[in-house]
Amino acid sequence: MISINGDRVISDLRELATIGAFQTGVDRVAFSAVDIQARRWLVEKLRQAGLEGSLDRAGNVLGRDPKAAKAILVGSHTDTVPKGGWLDGALGVIYALEAARSAFKSGETSAVGVDVISFADEEGTFLSCFGSRIFCGDIAASEIEAAKSKDGTRLLQALDAVANEAPHHRIDRERHLCFLEAHIEQGPRLEAAGRRIAVVTGLVGIRRLRVRAFGRADHAGTTPMAMRRDAGATLINFAAWVAQEFPKHAGPDTVWNIGSIAFQPGAANVVPSQSELVLEFRDTSAEVLDLLEGLVSARVQAMNGQPVAVAAETISRIAPAAMTASLGAMISDAASSVGETAMHIASGAGHDAMFVARVIPSAMMFVPSMGGRSHDISENTSDSDIVFGCRVFAEAVARARKNPQAFAAK
Amino acid sequence: MISINGDRVISDLRELATIGAFQTGVDRVAFSAVDIQARRWLVEKLRQAGLEGSLDRAGNVLGRDPKAAKAILVGSHTDTVPKGGWLDGALGVIYALEAARSAFKSGETSAVGVDVISFADEEGTFLSCFGSRIFCGDIAASEIEAAKSKDGTRLLQALDAVANEAPHHRIDRERHLCFLEAHIEQGPRLEAAGRRIAVVTGLVGIRRLRVRAFGRADHAGTTPMAMRRDAGATLINFAAWVAQEFPKHAGPDTVWNIGSIAFQPGAANVVPSQSELVLEFRDTSAEVLDLLEGLVSARVQAMNGQPVAVAAETISRIAPAAMTASLGAMISDAASSVGETAMHIASGAGHDAMFVARVIPSAMMFVPSMGGRSHDISENTSDSDIVFGCRVFAEAVARARKNPQAFAAK
Repeated sequence: MISINGDRVISDLRELATIGAFQTGVDRVAFSAVDIQARRWLVEKLRQAGLEGSLDRAGNVLGRDPKAAKAILVGSHTDTVPKGGWLDGALGVIYALEAARSAFKSGETSAVGVDVISFADEEGTFLSCFGSRIFCGDIAASEIEAAKSKDGTRLLQALDAVANEAPHHRIDRERHLCFLEAHIEQGPRLEAAGRRIAVVTGLVGIRRLRVRAFGRADHAGTTPMAMRRDAGATLINFAAWVAQEFPKHAGPDTVWNIGSIAFQPGAANVVPSQSELVLEFRDTSAEVLDLLEGLVSARVQAMNGQPVAVAAETISRIAPAAMTASLGAMISDAASSVGETAMHIASGAGHDAMFVARVIPSAMMFVPSMGGRSHDISENTSDSDIVFGCRVFAEAVARARKNPQAFAAK
Repeated sequence: MISINGDRVISDLRELATIGAFQTGVDRVAFSAVDIQARRWLVEKLRQAGLEGSLDRAGNVLGRDPKAAKAILVGSHTDTVPKGGWLDGALGVIYALEAARSAFKSGETSAVGVDVISFADEEGTFLSCFGSRIFCGDIAASEIEAAKSKDGTRLLQALDAVANEAPHHRIDRERHLCFLEAHIEQGPRLEAAGRRIAVVTGLVGIRRLRVRAFGRADHAGTTPMAMRRDAGATLINFAAWVAQEFPKHAGPDTVWNIGSIAFQPGAANVVPSQSELVLEFRDTSAEVLDLLEGLVSARVQAMNGQPVAVAAETISRIAPAAMTASLGAMISDAASSVGETAMHIASGAGHDAMFVARVIPSAMMFVPSMGGRSHDISENTSDSDIVFGCRVFAEAVARARKNPQAFAAK
């Protein structure tokens, strides 16, 4: 069993959280001054650990193991959502740093080193997983050209902040044998089960549909019920159908959400002339997603013109990402070696590993989130769970270094 | 049968519509310069007709028959909603003017004259039915003090425009034997039935409830369905219940509407933490309104805490107003005398007659609205329907003057 320095992990996380601190959380959005400051801080930490650390002109920080020809790639991201938490991303980066430090300190000989990465703009202030996508060469120039923040700032403009940094770091299929990412769960399942480690079986795919109805505005006092074309009642009917039918066709882990709905003109005494809602559903199985999307299409088609026009458009479609089972098994074996039986759960959120997994074998592990909270200043994990998770992560990295033939390269 | 001048009715309506003309409609909101201009125009028309016309310091215009000790009170309002139609209110005022002119021209002797009124701010730019309420002494000073327009202008400030006009006109129980108001239907029923005249059986009461749910914002990807407290799904469930249950308990003429709904925070990937909708329902029967409100309360109570907190509050409650049947019969008799069988329908909208009916016997009649449209520049009625309606109205006024003992004073 590899040993880690738990106090150092906590103190590094606490120090990192001071950069862009916001109340009990952190506001460190991509390419802000504090985001760059945190990345320079990490470069310094990597150098102190004996790695060749540098920030590149995409905002990615890579700490390269100078003594090894091959390496396990480990890491996550240090940017946050606005008014976010102190652990989302940061935890995986500090685990990676500690896994590298432990590996070097252990002195165990292995042909396989440890490379640490912190990806840029995972949270999508400009473009979700920008850092991991450009690192993996999985992004079109036109996407970078078009990307803007909510306030209209272009990504290309934001990148000025790192224009004088190192040339782009790139994934190296010869060198990088696999990718391991630790993250807070951002959900309540570990806590609810009283468990400390989850191996991620896969990252869910996401379908997002906008459903709109077009009826007629009528005086709600003078227009008999039977003579209305009520766009509001039409979408209420649709939403109630979702609540009734989705459970019959969904998989055990499928989740769905109607996060927004609005009626026009929105007056109490006017029958809604237009209405709109956004329905999202997620599953690790593309078949389940296709089935649900097909049911929605059929329902919308059946409702259309009865007597209100209804239309659905798919506004976002993200494919599920499988994780490498043999690599996940190393995480659960590492957990077992310290007496913990890992849960196996799908990740309902997207992560950088989604893109890295398209290139090299990849796996993720989760530690508990108190109350399931994330993307909020209340996001937290107990110190003991943080330290325990780091031990498991460092042990999994050590096992991967020793036994790289256990996970077949894709 | 009394005779009217149909061309004069149309030309007066057209002339009035030029004051505050907006595209094919009229924008003549209460106490605007064009509203005051239209009221001065009416005073002049009343004087030309031989009435003592004056604008008072509430914005009400009264045309008093100088030759009679008692009178039938007739009229409506000349203010409009923003970007409204040319007939809503104006039609009833010009009918009243023409009924007075016809009465004087007929030379028939009667102890009962005709008084014409145009009430201020019926549309509620500042306070719904302000003019008829102050005319009837049915308004508290505190309400006038508090009334404001949507843009924050106080009614007291708006009244500066008429501060130098005549002292308040008041209803006179000795003089005003009854009130007759004509109006466009603002609904599609006459047109759908191919009929030209409706006698209003009563004005509906209105209950307006705000229903709110308080759940918890959760990540819609990482929080299993069973662990959510979804405020959005809760109100979808409630709204679907309304659609299913109201038809079982409503009367034949009950109408209801969910005109607005909103979820917070309103993001596709966040389970709604709060939600709110406004449910309104109308009926001429207070018993039906009580029954429906009771059902809603019971449903909200049953849903509350399962697992989302739900609460309903009644934000508006307007009592139904009965019309005087014997006076309505005079309208249907007048229609029959020219070969038209009047429909009998409830008014789904509020009118000045609602308040006048609390003091003296009152009745209303409707003429068709093309496509049921009102409160919009597309509002219209054919010239022939307008003229036909005026003949019936003037005849009904003539019958009321001749036979005031037919409707018992309240």
